Amino acid sequence: MPLPEKALISRIRRLATGTLSHGQKVGRAGAEIPAENRRRPVPAILAGIGDDSAVLRPLTGHDLLVTTDFSLEGIHFRRDWHPAESVGHRCLARGLSDIAAMGGEPVAAFLSLALPHDLPQAWVGRFLHGLMSLAEKHSVTLAGGDTAESPGGVLADIIVVGAVPKGKALMRSGARPGDRIFVSGELGGSAAAVLQMQAKPKKANSRRKLNPRYYLGHFYPKPRVELGRMLRGKGLASAMIDTSDGLSTDLGHICEESHVGAELDATLIPVACVGQPARQVDFDLALHGGEDYELLFTVPRGKRIPIEVGGVVVTRIGEITRSPGIFVRNPNGIAHELHPRGWEHFRR
Amino acid sequence: MPLPEKALISRIRRLATGTLSHGQKVGRAGAEIPAENRRRPVPAILAGIGDDSAVLRPLTGHDLLVTTDFSLEGIHFRRDWHPAESVGHRCLARGLSDIAAMGGEPVAAFLSLALPHDLPQAWVGRFLHGLMSLAEKHSVTLAGGDTAESPGGVLADIIVVGAVPKGKALMRSGARPGDRIFVSGELGGSAAAVLQMQAKPKKANSRRKLNPRYYLGHFYPKPRVELGRMLRGKGLASAMIDTSDGLSTDLGHICEESHVGAELDATLIPVACVGQPARQVDFDLALHGGEDYELLFTVPRGKRIPIEVGGVVVTRIGEITRSPGIFVRNPNGIAHELHPRGWEHFRR
Repeated sequence: MPLPEKALISRIRRLATGTLSHGQKVGRAGAEIPAENRRRPVPAILAGIGDDSAVLRPLTGHDLLVTTDFSLEGIHFRRDWHPAESVGHRCLARGLSDIAAMGGEPVAAFLSLALPHDLPQAWVGRFLHGLMSLAEKHSVTLAGGDTAESPGGVLADIIVVGAVPKGKALMRSGARPGDRIFVSGELGGSAAAVLQMQAKPKKANSRRKLNPRYYLGHFYPKPRVELGRMLRGKGLASAMIDTSDGLSTDLGHICEESHVGAELDATLIPVACVGQPARQVDFDLALHGGEDYELLFTVPRGKRIPIEVGGVVVTRIGEITRSPGIFVRNPNGIAHELHPRGWEHFRR
Repeated sequence: MPLPEKALISRIRRLATGTLSHGQKVGRAGAEIPAENRRRPVPAILAGIGDDSAVLRPLTGHDLLVTTDFSLEGIHFRRDWHPAESVGHRCLARGLSDIAAMGGEPVAAFLSLALPHDLPQAWVGRFLHGLMSLAEKHSVTLAGGDTAESPGGVLADIIVVGAVPKGKALMRSGARPGDRIFVSGELGGSAAAVLQMQAKPKKANSRRKLNPRYYLGHFYPKPRVELGRMLRGKGLASAMIDTSDGLSTDLGHICEESHVGAELDATLIPVACVGQPARQVDFDLALHGGEDYELLFTVPRGKRIPIEVGGVVVTRIGEITRSPGIFVRNPNGIAHELHPRGWEHFRR
């Protein structure tokens, strides 16, 4: 059974206080945080957990970003597939990735968490550890939330508040014909892990658990906050989105909001390698598989993009077109229309 | 079955656009909105539904408030007890009430909504209608959220962002010995409705549905935004909280955060009247029943509180004491210690 609510909130409050001191965040310096990240000016959190609302003092000259994302047991994760730390990590990663996709700086997180009556408190501790470790890496303060008993399964909703210099948020709507299309990292690795776990176990009573070490992109995705900030700061990208639903669907969102089309070069799409021994995943998974949390962005002609930013490889995969529709050109030169086949809830 | 996700988001986006125009909110003028409310300066919402994050431009000289609240089927509501409009109304009311309790102005709401596969779309429409009607009354814009398929039951998480003049948020921690304790409206009405619905139906197959008209405080609670803003604006309150968990628990929160105690006068506590014919609810429900969403606040000696603010009666019920513990003095003059018996999840 989880701790009684008051004790649970106290525990979360103590964990959160590790990154909250005198209303100013003091994230533990991790190896992966560039020095500029720790000195950056951030909005102050005047009150966090323990009042009716959190109180944030916005930075002058900045806009605020707000995003919310569910992590529901049985829909976004399974307790027999995902270690609790991974569930906590992925829960926050979804929100951080949305802030990254706007070119923003994550500041504070709010966690609504409903737990079933029979959930071991140890699971909750490991979940919070996974979430707070990622929060500290990005100097994000857990500033509030809600707790409740769940009618079934672990239910989490993460809210991330971020900041971006006034008027500089990178939208989905800024792509123009002729812009080149780029994506960070590799695609399809997360969906490949899910497929693997869905496959029938070879022995009747063996559970299909994967070793997270060989599927890091699925179990511990890295939100591309630094890349997003760099692209926004240097004015390199015209539109941006994260690949949470899959390339075909997410590129569709950019095209729809920007009223343009796109042509991709099949040979350029970076297909993920997963497993032990590692092997490339199916090309279809790179086109349609979701939850890779890479950044997909468009760049006006004449602007140069470095091959690698903060250890993340960036690959040009196509071009924005005036005519609508998304097409993929195969090695033989023939272009096929690419229909969105990424993740959509309630699809009939 | 609910609409496919993309269609559902489009529908919510259209509904939300009714209150969103050129990045500035234009709430429909309802009879209950005072004129000042419609002319007030508010943070602009530069981008709402349809990007990775919403973009808000904070008002100069203001702090931001953020609160999140679950509404989970089987925990916070039941579909056979609550009309869908009431579920939507109560979902948003919980968040607005938290902003009211800080003396703030609600600005934007974000809705994470997970729906079971077999839920009729008509239910979703009525839920959204209930939520949006209350949003319009308070000129609040639905600026984003998340949608997902639910593993079981309707699951909603509402996030409300508000604004308050810099440094002026009313906290739970400001109560001082000698301050008088006030509460708005009446207490116990919401819990009485729940008790009534929990009672065994008289006939085996008759469902125990209440007529919301006679239990408005439960089905359509009114968040006390105007009262909270007035108390903050005139500097009348030293500490404030909303009675979401019940008087004994919520006054306990003020006492704990302020390091004080309290003494209540039993004869002064405003006990709700509900039902048809209306009758006063049990005194214990007024002490411990939650979800009334009234404001409970403390006022330094010498400051005068009007008897009524914006149509809501305000009642003095006791005094803050230096010695810890909360006591209730009965008509016979004997004081009994009041232990928190309001709502707590996972209580053993």
